[in-house]
Amino acid sequence: MRIAFLGGLNEVGKNMTLYEYKDSMFLVDCGLAFPEPDLLGVDLVLPDFSYVEKNIDKIKGIVVTHGHEDHIGGLAYLLKTANIPIYSTKLTIGLIEGKLKEHNLLSSAKLNVVKPGDHVKLGDFDVELIHVNHSIPDAVALAIRCAGGTVVQMGDFKIDTTPIDGEPIDLNRLAQIGTEGVFCLLSDSTNAERPGYTESEKKVGESFDNLFRRAGNRRIIVATFASNIHRVQQIINTAAALGRKVALSGRSLENVVAVAKELGYIDVPEGIIVNIDMLKRYPEDKMVIITTGSQGEPMSALTRMAFSDHRRVEVGPNDYIIISATPIPGNEKTVGKVVNELMKLGAEVIYEKMYEVHVSGHACQEELKMIMNLVKPKYFIPVHGEQKHLQKHKLLAESIGIDSKNIIIADNGDLVEMSDKAIKVAGTVPAGKVFVDGSGVGDVGNIVLRDRKHLSEDGIIIIAASIESGSGYIVSGPDIITRGFVYVKEAEELIEEAKAIAFDTLEDRLMRAPNDIMAAKTKVRDAVSSFVYERTRRSPMIVPIIMEV
Amino acid sequence: MRIAFLGGLNEVGKNMTLYEYKDSMFLVDCGLAFPEPDLLGVDLVLPDFSYVEKNIDKIKGIVVTHGHEDHIGGLAYLLKTANIPIYSTKLTIGLIEGKLKEHNLLSSAKLNVVKPGDHVKLGDFDVELIHVNHSIPDAVALAIRCAGGTVVQMGDFKIDTTPIDGEPIDLNRLAQIGTEGVFCLLSDSTNAERPGYTESEKKVGESFDNLFRRAGNRRIIVATFASNIHRVQQIINTAAALGRKVALSGRSLENVVAVAKELGYIDVPEGIIVNIDMLKRYPEDKMVIITTGSQGEPMSALTRMAFSDHRRVEVGPNDYIIISATPIPGNEKTVGKVVNELMKLGAEVIYEKMYEVHVSGHACQEELKMIMNLVKPKYFIPVHGEQKHLQKHKLLAESIGIDSKNIIIADNGDLVEMSDKAIKVAGTVPAGKVFVDGSGVGDVGNIVLRDRKHLSEDGIIIIAASIESGSGYIVSGPDIITRGFVYVKEAEELIEEAKAIAFDTLEDRLMRAPNDIMAAKTKVRDAVSSFVYERTRRSPMIVPIIMEV
Repeated sequence: MRIAFLGGLNEVGKNMTLYEYKDSMFLVDCGLAFPEPDLLGVDLVLPDFSYVEKNIDKIKGIVVTHGHEDHIGGLAYLLKTANIPIYSTKLTIGLIEGKLKEHNLLSSAKLNVVKPGDHVKLGDFDVELIHVNHSIPDAVALAIRCAGGTVVQMGDFKIDTTPIDGEPIDLNRLAQIGTEGVFCLLSDSTNAERPGYTESEKKVGESFDNLFRRAGNRRIIVATFASNIHRVQQIINTAAALGRKVALSGRSLENVVAVAKELGYIDVPEGIIVNIDMLKRYPEDKMVIITTGSQGEPMSALTRMAFSDHRRVEVGPNDYIIISATPIPGNEKTVGKVVNELMKLGAEVIYEKMYEVHVSGHACQEELKMIMNLVKPKYFIPVHGEQKHLQKHKLLAESIGIDSKNIIIADNGDLVEMSDKAIKVAGTVPAGKVFVDGSGVGDVGNIVLRDRKHLSEDGIIIIAASIESGSGYIVSGPDIITRGFVYVKEAEELIEEAKAIAFDTLEDRLMRAPNDIMAAKTKVRDAVSSFVYERTRRSPMIVPIIMEV
Repeated sequence: MRIAFLGGLNEVGKNMTLYEYKDSMFLVDCGLAFPEPDLLGVDLVLPDFSYVEKNIDKIKGIVVTHGHEDHIGGLAYLLKTANIPIYSTKLTIGLIEGKLKEHNLLSSAKLNVVKPGDHVKLGDFDVELIHVNHSIPDAVALAIRCAGGTVVQMGDFKIDTTPIDGEPIDLNRLAQIGTEGVFCLLSDSTNAERPGYTESEKKVGESFDNLFRRAGNRRIIVATFASNIHRVQQIINTAAALGRKVALSGRSLENVVAVAKELGYIDVPEGIIVNIDMLKRYPEDKMVIITTGSQGEPMSALTRMAFSDHRRVEVGPNDYIIISATPIPGNEKTVGKVVNELMKLGAEVIYEKMYEVHVSGHACQEELKMIMNLVKPKYFIPVHGEQKHLQKHKLLAESIGIDSKNIIIADNGDLVEMSDKAIKVAGTVPAGKVFVDGSGVGDVGNIVLRDRKHLSEDGIIIIAASIESGSGYIVSGPDIITRGFVYVKEAEELIEEAKAIAFDTLEDRLMRAPNDIMAAKTKVRDAVSSFVYERTRRSPMIVPIIMEV
């Protein structure tokens, strides 16, 4: 049996795994990532689909573990070239439908609702779904069986002994499968650095009870992840208990709640949700607003509230705001800015760990070890994490007695092969990042990004001149146009001197070789570049344009 | 008495405070900030000096509390236009000298070494220096006296009861001054969110003892802040005790250690420091390398080691690396990346809080309250922090009994006035951010930054054409040149169509109004912009250039 990692290792965010046995293949998940800040102008990052496209005839289906963007977000792009049947739980399929609708792919897609306990037959594979807890309902782990052995892929999970929906992770089934014998375990490394156990989602409900009371007669605003339906449920429950109504702000939140309500994943008492446009009709001390933006995302509802840019919600001293989330690494500063701005408006903001207004959706060290103890795999592959998480997870596996040589830390693109004798990286497959910018997929790459970085740091100087074809006489210009360089009025003298240098260089060069425009451009670029650097210690991009007339 | 805040509030990093009483003024600190990522291409951020320049005749001097960049980094820029006498402790002056040397200002500067207990007379002001603990030696608080009353400005501080240099913060003197009566306290809000006490620097030494032993016969690399001289001292002590030599990597580290050694702030046993160029001559298990880069700074020594780009140090499985720092908010992701890369090279990396390899240089809540208890101020102004820190600090002040109306949360540019009756914001002074880009100070502002942002997101399309003067006939072009847009080969067809559109638009326009080149440019820009957006959902900057020949 072979497993190809098309995403999800080292760069968390675009999970995609391919299983291969004899002539059968299938996929687990197809996520997308949001770009790191150095990917200038890139909107989304997809996995590389070329290995999938190459093997399209062998691929029997794609099984999706849960409905988060980093597991379903790539599907709409994949389906455009490869209409592979999709299998997942009811809520996950509901969320996928929303995505496919936006891309006009819903009617053609082959969507199959399955449930924990079901087995999906995919060529030589049998894939069993196992209920797990996570920060979105209806998440599953997979037991993947073929003649080559059984692999358990945990997906994203935690062990919640008192989950909101009353359904703890199915440890019994995992134990049973472990007893039957498991070849290899793939498990979630997100929290492999954190000792102990992740707290139950119920803990957050208790905090809401306390905090909502402390809010007194102020309006309450709670920011959380749109997809955390159990969190939303708890906010609604607490609001209802205190006689408050609930309004939703943020498109993704409205969408997810609508789907969850329709499919029965959230229990909303009649009349408790009011349209945000009707906010003014209700007294402030009778309202709870649930909003997106818990990560300080620039266009989110909470950020717009913080910068007094929200059409319906004006934040002031009568607001009690709870940020029910922890900043994802990299977002600390933006979240901090939103908190600062909300405080400047006079609101009280509850955002610190000690208030226990958030619990993670991922298992900590003790849970991770417990799963290994139950599943008792021969081989172990830590997945879903950066290098540091994968390595910590490996140490945990060693600590419970898994032999170091039976553990593989793979990288994206690795093709891992396992047999009775050994597990090893047997080769690689294409697995780079594919960038989505506007409507373009894959037409922006490193050269374009390098240019954007250059432009972003020092701007551009364009030098334009017209010359007489043949003689090389300069008949117009050189003119200089700058963008993103310096204030023009501060640089007038500099620009005049640069023009003179460009003129002299061009004239000198074209007198010697009137037809070698390429060489003339290079000389002009070098001369102006040196001059500008000498004067300003800056290196704007220099683009000479010479037109022959 | 009036206090003008020229920096250091809300945007930590460029501290500068101006005190004013009758015809006397003086400054405390003059820092710089490193730019946030959205300040594209900006190298440094300075305070606005215009209020200082306007009042230069009244300003008697500048007192500097300690030698960190955010308190001394702006001096070299300030002194270019205003050669104000500088007063500070020996080490701080030593570090300032280094900065001024780089800017060829050393010979003209008026530097005065003073010590804790000394009083500096500045017009109507008497400024007394009081020893405090911080993450750099020789830091002071200030007791500022004038006929209007006494103000205590704490500077950056913590209470370390077992500091490395044996000199705890002078609580006795602060208590004495408090007993005599203090009008107003300005105190450091950095850790106002953190309960309890900040641990002693000595704690880190104990951790080094344990960890260096665990390193066994591997090479040890410790990353820390260059200016944390006591940290460096402890690393040297532990290395010496275990018979290891020490090499320094990173220019700022070498500079600071040289100054500290010369001035007697660090005790380096003979022969223990070896030049990094000689590294290969010593066995790996006999070496400790101290390096900069604990914040994952892109050009730092540790980052270069992580990306196998360091000339002298090649990291591998025989390295035991300690990151003796906590990521400053905003740096979590870059530090994480460096850790990931070091681990990929096979090194063991110690970076987690639980190893206690770092303590903060700033006071936590209990220390902050203790200082308020000792100083017993009538008025309180929380400084040095973002809004959330200032507000938490205000709550602490209220909790020890300071009246809410006697506490001011100021903003940069606020001119705070205090009298026996009240404290209030009496006006504002110029206090924006001034950007340093290359050798230019203040010639990059919001318009330039907006252009850089635009360029960075979608690149630029230049449309160049030559027309016959008078008739408006197009005699060359339009040509299209793009940078940072898309791969040219992916967009050939698009560019050809855009050219045709530009040609048609230009011809049509110039036929109607051959001399209105401005209008023709606008039409071409709009037409190409709409076409490109329609096709690609991107909005590159469009620059039409029309040359008359």
